[in-house]
Amino acid sequence: MTDTLTGVGVSSGVGFGPALRLARAVPEPPEGERHGGDAAAEAARAASALEETAQDLTDRGERAGGDAQEVLDAQALMARDPSLAGDVERRVGEGTSAARAVFEAFTAYREVLASAGAYLAARVADLDDVRDRVVARLLGVPVPGVPESATPFVLLAHDLAPADTALLDPERVLAFVTREGGPTSHTAILARSLGLPAVVACAGSEEIADGVPLLVDGATGEVVRDPDPAFVEQAEARAAARTTAAARSEGPGRTSDGHRVPLLANIGGPQDLPAALENGAEGVGLYRTEFLFLDRADAPTREEQLAAYRAVLEAFPGAKVVVRTLDSGADKPLAFLPPPAAEPNPALGERGLRMMRRFPEMLRTQLAALAEAERDTDARLQVMAPMVTDAEDAEWFAAAAAGAGIEQAGIMVEVPAAALRAAHLAESAGFFSIGTNDLTQYACAADREIGGLSRFQDSWQPGVLDLVALTASAASGAGRECGVCGEAAADPVLACVLVGLGVTSLSMGATALPLVRAALAHSSLEQCGDAATAARAARTPEAARRAARDRLPGLAEFGL
Amino acid sequence: MTDTLTGVGVSSGVGFGPALRLARAVPEPPEGERHGGDAAAEAARAASALEETAQDLTDRGERAGGDAQEVLDAQALMARDPSLAGDVERRVGEGTSAARAVFEAFTAYREVLASAGAYLAARVADLDDVRDRVVARLLGVPVPGVPESATPFVLLAHDLAPADTALLDPERVLAFVTREGGPTSHTAILARSLGLPAVVACAGSEEIADGVPLLVDGATGEVVRDPDPAFVEQAEARAAARTTAAARSEGPGRTSDGHRVPLLANIGGPQDLPAALENGAEGVGLYRTEFLFLDRADAPTREEQLAAYRAVLEAFPGAKVVVRTLDSGADKPLAFLPPPAAEPNPALGERGLRMMRRFPEMLRTQLAALAEAERDTDARLQVMAPMVTDAEDAEWFAAAAAGAGIEQAGIMVEVPAAALRAAHLAESAGFFSIGTNDLTQYACAADREIGGLSRFQDSWQPGVLDLVALTASAASGAGRECGVCGEAAADPVLACVLVGLGVTSLSMGATALPLVRAALAHSSLEQCGDAATAARAARTPEAARRAARDRLPGLAEFGL
Repeated sequence: MTDTLTGVGVSSGVGFGPALRLARAVPEPPEGERHGGDAAAEAARAASALEETAQDLTDRGERAGGDAQEVLDAQALMARDPSLAGDVERRVGEGTSAARAVFEAFTAYREVLASAGAYLAARVADLDDVRDRVVARLLGVPVPGVPESATPFVLLAHDLAPADTALLDPERVLAFVTREGGPTSHTAILARSLGLPAVVACAGSEEIADGVPLLVDGATGEVVRDPDPAFVEQAEARAAARTTAAARSEGPGRTSDGHRVPLLANIGGPQDLPAALENGAEGVGLYRTEFLFLDRADAPTREEQLAAYRAVLEAFPGAKVVVRTLDSGADKPLAFLPPPAAEPNPALGERGLRMMRRFPEMLRTQLAALAEAERDTDARLQVMAPMVTDAEDAEWFAAAAAGAGIEQAGIMVEVPAAALRAAHLAESAGFFSIGTNDLTQYACAADREIGGLSRFQDSWQPGVLDLVALTASAASGAGRECGVCGEAAADPVLACVLVGLGVTSLSMGATALPLVRAALAHSSLEQCGDAATAARAARTPEAARRAARDRLPGLAEFGL
Repeated sequence: MTDTLTGVGVSSGVGFGPALRLARAVPEPPEGERHGGDAAAEAARAASALEETAQDLTDRGERAGGDAQEVLDAQALMARDPSLAGDVERRVGEGTSAARAVFEAFTAYREVLASAGAYLAARVADLDDVRDRVVARLLGVPVPGVPESATPFVLLAHDLAPADTALLDPERVLAFVTREGGPTSHTAILARSLGLPAVVACAGSEEIADGVPLLVDGATGEVVRDPDPAFVEQAEARAAARTTAAARSEGPGRTSDGHRVPLLANIGGPQDLPAALENGAEGVGLYRTEFLFLDRADAPTREEQLAAYRAVLEAFPGAKVVVRTLDSGADKPLAFLPPPAAEPNPALGERGLRMMRRFPEMLRTQLAALAEAERDTDARLQVMAPMVTDAEDAEWFAAAAAGAGIEQAGIMVEVPAAALRAAHLAESAGFFSIGTNDLTQYACAADREIGGLSRFQDSWQPGVLDLVALTASAASGAGRECGVCGEAAADPVLACVLVGLGVTSLSMGATALPLVRAALAHSSLEQCGDAATAARAARTPEAARRAARDRLPGLAEFGL
């Protein structure tokens, strides 16, 4: 029986093959389980299991590289946390078995993490994964992970831990489908960086049995059980056409009639530069600098920052590099600042520029390092602040940047009030960059991390398109550039609509660049404008997408 | 030396007198403190202190009545929590002193509460207050609270616990000023219900010494140290003029040229009806039904709901009563539903209608009880859903209400996307009610509970006025009514602006009704329109307020 489940497609491409579910059943060691009496030996077993797990995670990280390595290294740090080890030892000293002691100590640690704000709370899944690995070692059962299979398969899971996805072999895994996760979740971002088709937040996927043939379309979010061969063939042909079109696309971004739309890369640091260059990025549209600041005891020095910024600017001589100043908050706390007050909703809290206005010295150092990096290189530096809310914020940041000798100072537009009042903000902001992920989150009041709200986390929501249109039109009226640097820019159809709404550049994860370049090259500026008008006239995200697609005939050729 | 601090005025009126700071220093019992050895006697002491504190809180609640009683009863329940008592007993059994055991058990409980989502996390201050009261009893030190003073004073505090504010005697306390808290915080709402001038989120107030003469203007948010007598006289004259104008206002709400604007009350249940009637409410604009559902083990039955709804409807024969269906979520969990997943940002989570769409049977029961209450009475029932986000939500709710036989089904407009797309939502929504508190919170991405973000929690933010204007204009285009039921409606100047933006009714806490009625009666519809246009043209909330005020000359007469 053919039937179709629909989730959220987060990494395009088509995969077809038998379902296989991730093995993740490490049993909970029974409550009250005690060891034989030799506490020292038992504590040593626990310590070895922790260390072996840490080492295994580090090794996997080295093999995986990139973003995955960062995540796996962070997990290894959890396994090596001295207070956790101390807690395990104490529990073993009281007679508890090593496996149970590990289980209990992780549970206590988990509660601390869960109560410490969203950034850390989102790491709870990572922590549970570490716990399962340590407990599995102590019990002598298989370490959880991707199941063994001689033939390629579609991986099903409740959610995937980074340690699982990092070493997925695209030769064996055809796609993945998870019950949880959102379009901007950690796992979705990793999937895209691995180039694997993926559908998340897929209700009903938990009931699919192992071995059922599944067609997964990461572009549409469809998961089809037991499809007929002709349907599979069509879907695969569409995917192949997309791959071909992407591979053929080259040169700077432009519509079919030559309207220039610079295509830029979102990066987290110098490690992302090779992929950006390989995929033909014309510059950097979003350099997230928080990775320089998070997970360390002291603030990075000006010199250290300078080295990182210079490495990025040097990679793009003569090109635009847009750097976002530090975006920290209660959900991404910095160890070297006073701990932020517990916030009930960190996404609505003192984050981004709001935090920097409380610690202006930190912003000053960052701006000084950026200004110096610009003097040392040929790139065209632009600096922007996150979470700008009103005209006063925009003025404050422009003054701070000018004080550091930075000429091109702009703002992220991700707060609805900023989009609504973009005309006033343009008086002091040198340029806009629309962060569609957060703008959608706030406009629809729907947390990016909650799978059940994926309907509202869609930048095709007509209200979000309205805010983009307002911002782009205010920018144009003031003679300012207006880019988009959210996930919306990576959707080839939506990218054409954004251009039609008046957006002047698009920035995205590097792997999405070729297909977006191809989509633009097959559509005229007028078609993009018609698609935008049609999308805004729609009542629902689905209708908006359909209406836009109908007005972009050039995309049919490569299966979009 | 005269100088002025500015906070957020949350309860209007003017108070002048010497500062006096709330005593709140109950010492922490030293770590490791042990009792003499008679664990049973020590445990009995602890149990008595818990029970006496619970009884004291219940007594205070009975004396205070109203909202304050609910809060104090909830605190008494905390003191009587059996798992907390068990934890204290266990700690005492291990040798810990009663005071220290209470301190530690509350700390553990506090962590559970803090990690359980925002609604419970906001109760942490209440819990700390209970702990201090129990520990004070055990140590034989004064129970914290309002300081003793022979002469009236202005009360200063970091933040006020409900048990402090509930029994404030307006004869002795002239006003209060806190360092923390926001305009929609619990404490602010209580202050208004007590009719005390109050300024919250007042930076610098922590440095004011006891005895310094302070003028507190709860309308402007100004706290003036050591003002000269003429200044005090002026401020008091303005406040007196407001009081007189409010006392004189009567009859239904209308502008000076007779444009009708029904003035309605926000209520939490039948207990709020006397104040609503006393202040001349023409009906109920927002009946928050969650108090029927929270803090209880089982869902209220249809019969129980019917009794509550009927009591409200009977109080307003022939008048409009707008009932909001249950608004629960991860921050206001219901004991009788499966526990919601931990959400990093409950305000952006599965709350309101999103939750009801997961538990439609619960909504069905509520709608059936409402429909029956309407049949039994003469009020004009309108029912609305909270957290409606898009046209599909609005259609779903309209269908559910129609299924229950309810004709007048509308929606809260509190999500920016709903305001932006109000024209589409009006196709199925019978009316709109704008919730300015949440709309402002989402539009400015600024949590209502965070004092440091009060600049963004201001409904005078021009972007918020834009969303109100969009909603009102879409309503008018579709022939629908569009009320406002947030705190914005209680600000007499803003109330005139809302009318100028096209809002058709205003609903507020009952004590604010007389002054809003007076403000409208002194302004023509044209003046309201001019004020609205001027406010929307402004760049900042302050400029918007000034510009609007300048165009409402009738308000000068009574000192606004």
